[in-house]
Amino acid sequence: MREHTERRRVEWADTDMAGIVHFARFFVFMETAEHRFREALGFPIGQDSTNGASLGWPRVSAACDYRRPARFGDELEIVTRVVEQGTTSLTFGFTVTREGALVAEGRMTSVCCRLEPHLQPVPIPERMAAAIEVAAD
Amino acid sequence: MREHTERRRVEWADTDMAGIVHFARFFVFMETAEHRFREALGFPIGQDSTNGASLGWPRVSAACDYRRPARFGDELEIVTRVVEQGTTSLTFGFTVTREGALVAEGRMTSVCCRLEPHLQPVPIPERMAAAIEVAAD
Amino acid sequence: MREHTERRRVEWADTDMAGIVHFARFFVFMETAEHRFREALGFPIGQDSTNGASLGWPRVSAACDYRRPARFGDELEIVTRVVEQGTTSLTFGFTVTREGALVAEGRMTSVCCRLEPHLQPVPIPERMAAAIEVAAD
Amino acid sequence: MREHTERRRVEWADTDMAGIVHFARFFVFMETAEHRFREALGFPIGQDSTNGASLGWPRVSAACDYRRPARFGDELEIVTRVVEQGTTSLTFGFTVTREGALVAEGRMTSVCCRLEPHLQPVPIPERMAAAIEVAAD
Repeated sequence: MREHTERRRVEWADTDMAGIVHFARFFVFMETAEHRFREALGFPIGQDSTNGASLGWPRVSAACDYRRPARFGDELEIVTRVVEQGTTSLTFGFTVTREGALVAEGRMTSVCCRLEPHLQPVPIPERMAAAIEVAAD
Repeated sequence: MREHTERRRVEWADTDMAGIVHFARFFVFMETAEHRFREALGFPIGQDSTNGASLGWPRVSAACDYRRPARFGDELEIVTRVVEQGTTSLTFGFTVTREGALVAEGRMTSVCCRLEPHLQPVPIPERMAAAIEVAAD
Repeated sequence: MREHTERRRVEWADTDMAGIVHFARFFVFMETAEHRFREALGFPIGQDSTNGASLGWPRVSAACDYRRPARFGDELEIVTRVVEQGTTSLTFGFTVTREGALVAEGRMTSVCCRLEPHLQPVPIPERMAAAIEVAAD
Repeated sequence: MREHTERRRVEWADTDMAGIVHFARFFVFMETAEHRFREALGFPIGQDSTNGASLGWPRVSAACDYRRPARFGDELEIVTRVVEQGTTSLTFGFTVTREGALVAEGRMTSVCCRLEPHLQPVPIPERMAAAIEVAAD
């Protein structure tokens, strides 16, 4: 799968006293878009496993550049892609637009880990790795 | 213990586009004040137990009346009391003030439950029950 | 209009370390449902006015009873009704269900106010008042 | 001023179902630490101005690397520094530690803007620029 597109409307609680979406909320928007990408790929977060071991995906980095403010009621479109695929890690890239105008761009990297007996990085399951198509950044 | 007083300053992310603290944030303010009360009482949330069984305190209700807006930078004072003590439940009452002026009043009820083998209401541990002093509402 | 139904899926950031939706998030769910009700009624929040004066709707109270936990990925249905209509105030009632099972019930009251020259309660605009149908609580 | 140190305890609402602080909350922690730095510098956010014009500081980027999870009740120490000072922009660097162990490192860039008659980048006020000491990154 190459990309996933998600829509969401800005809620009142997403805004701050500057009258715009608080910058930290974009990380929640991107996380949910990433989860929907994983679900569309067939490997929903919290339900994937490898050789019978449950997997978690702790984040090691998150970044966002802000281009235009978003406001209460705005209909945002969030496009999610995998922009880097390592043996044990995935970096997702996100573009947030409103009626075609760029609002924000972000990147978030997670590491594939077994949860038991203790958190330990493991290779991304083969079927999942095969289902991902890395996009040009 | 009769009451516990907690101070916190309003952060930017607590505000919304009306320029005031978003009403739902008061529930977080009250929850943290309740946790500090429990800690001061000697029964910190997440660490209390009865006959060796870990306890949880699921909330069954939460309510707040809003008297005055609070704004970015405001120093709020939150007073926490137990206003009702049942066999298995506690109702905490909260008053939020700014320089003596009433900002909000709330109440939240939780039920004392064993977590294992499944969630089940149990009497409040005796030592904890004895340490609580119920305040006039 | 008698009621409005809204669906939303629980996001990762809605949860807390108990593994369930944090109780304060329900107030955000209810607020957004209320805004969609107002929009469907033709009087979207932030855009309504009376005799040329912009209106605001400060909340005076909010309450919620919790019946069942909600979890990550749950599809929630939120039904919004007006349960009390005063001259200057509206009380909305909310039921949150998951596949028909009751998760939470809430009530929130707001007062219709002119914003300029200073915040002042005013009667609900006649056309809006006429469009509302009060539901049995 | 070279740096500012801020302490905060992790609250229940900061956590998610993984049992750790949700990654997006670190941006709120860093923002509040930045505001306290500005305040200690003598130029509190929302109150600074240049030639009589009110200033705002829209964020253009935010990033964080996560080294260790933080948990409910943890006492975090957040050190804030200015790591880049441009004519119109400031980049703050943050380190979040718990008992000396690195939890997260972040960077956030804001642009100094007049708010009226429309948002427009302007040089950082001279007195403010002079008060800042840029730290090695």
